[in-house]
Amino acid sequence: MTIILHELVGADPARPFSPHCWKAVMALAHKGLPFERSNVCFTKVPEVEGGVSKTVPVIRDGDQVVSDSFMIAAYLEETYPDRPSLFGGEGGQAMARFVESWTNTVLHGVMRDIAMKGIHDALAPVDQAYFRSSREARVGKTLEQMVEGREAALAALPGTLMPVRVTLKSQPWIGGSSPLFADYIVFGALQWVRLTSNARLLEADDPVKDWFERCLDLYDGLGRSVPQSA
Amino acid sequence: MTIILHELVGADPARPFSPHCWKAVMALAHKGLPFERSNVCFTKVPEVEGGVSKTVPVIRDGDQVVSDSFMIAAYLEETYPDRPSLFGGEGGQAMARFVESWTNTVLHGVMRDIAMKGIHDALAPVDQAYFRSSREARVGKTLEQMVEGREAALAALPGTLMPVRVTLKSQPWIGGSSPLFADYIVFGALQWVRLTSNARLLEADDPVKDWFERCLDLYDGLGRSVPQSA
Repeated sequence: MTIILHELVGADPARPFSPHCWKAVMALAHKGLPFERSNVCFTKVPEVEGGVSKTVPVIRDGDQVVSDSFMIAAYLEETYPDRPSLFGGEGGQAMARFVESWTNTVLHGVMRDIAMKGIHDALAPVDQAYFRSSREARVGKTLEQMVEGREAALAALPGTLMPVRVTLKSQPWIGGSSPLFADYIVFGALQWVRLTSNARLLEADDPVKDWFERCLDLYDGLGRSVPQSA
Repeated sequence: MTIILHELVGADPARPFSPHCWKAVMALAHKGLPFERSNVCFTKVPEVEGGVSKTVPVIRDGDQVVSDSFMIAAYLEETYPDRPSLFGGEGGQAMARFVESWTNTVLHGVMRDIAMKGIHDALAPVDQAYFRSSREARVGKTLEQMVEGREAALAALPGTLMPVRVTLKSQPWIGGSSPLFADYIVFGALQWVRLTSNARLLEADDPVKDWFERCLDLYDGLGRSVPQSA
């Protein structure tokens, strides 16, 4: 049965941009499971699957409904153990939480300041109002203040990505010899900005750039199928 | 056969402080392998095991000699697969590289500035001269400049540890339900500063403090057996 993925979009339904939803997209593709992407805008998220979650992604797999990108990956791993593993064992599942924690608390902070204006501008007016008030409350800055931080965030990004760059000296993927969910966690953050900003994030000779391009190529270019923001 | 661990010390051989050597100590204890700690000061490292490595830890296990804390953990995992796993699978081994990369590039930078003076002062004079010149060259600051950064580093530390703190919301150890080598990687950094500084690093109600105390308790209080710097 085809799994339904409820995924965030802005005014253009062909440009899903949420980092958390992209993690779920890549996890489903990794498992080789057929899935259908169902669009939802910010202000309609509370209606998804009868209001099970304040956020997307949410998946429906038959009669199972699961929200939260990490819980979705864990559900897929447990439910489809014979398909390629997303974690490479229990230790990998535990440490993917560390990769997620670093991504959410460190990398997303930098990315958010780079992408903020592009995300806002990509939304329909009703979602813009919601987005502004919810993000301003969460971050404790006005949207304009976050936008002002854009140049500083761009300058900080290469240094922020150092743990990824050093990891890639030991192995081609964060997951080791092949990509795992931990790769998709970091990929989601870069994809988020690729789709909402025309900023040049990474230098051509940066190993993180090479890794990101390889992520975009995975599963017949699934990540690349949405072009970078103009 | 007892494994020999060559481990860095300063003027007092009873106070080994190297974060990388502590990772090897904890890895050996985790595997339940008998081992003997052999002391070496900075300027004698090039003589260890016939000069196999510029750094310690180095272990000798029968006729096998292995250097570098991560390579030691990987060697122990491969050689003693029937003993408790240090990685919890291939994914865990790969992602432990990410934890290591974050620890070395982010956490150690902060810790170094906090601990620098204490480390220097704990060395014998000949090692002090080596330590100063090698560290000043590596970091690109004078020892005095690093020491000046101490207050700023102490203030930055709680924020720096956020990825660990958030991970501990999902699970009791970085390794999941029980500690793995990834825990010892971060432990090593905190133990390094505990043994070379009397700074109060973590607030009593910080979950990272609770985790660190639990690390100190492991293996009959192995980490706690060396008291905090006065």
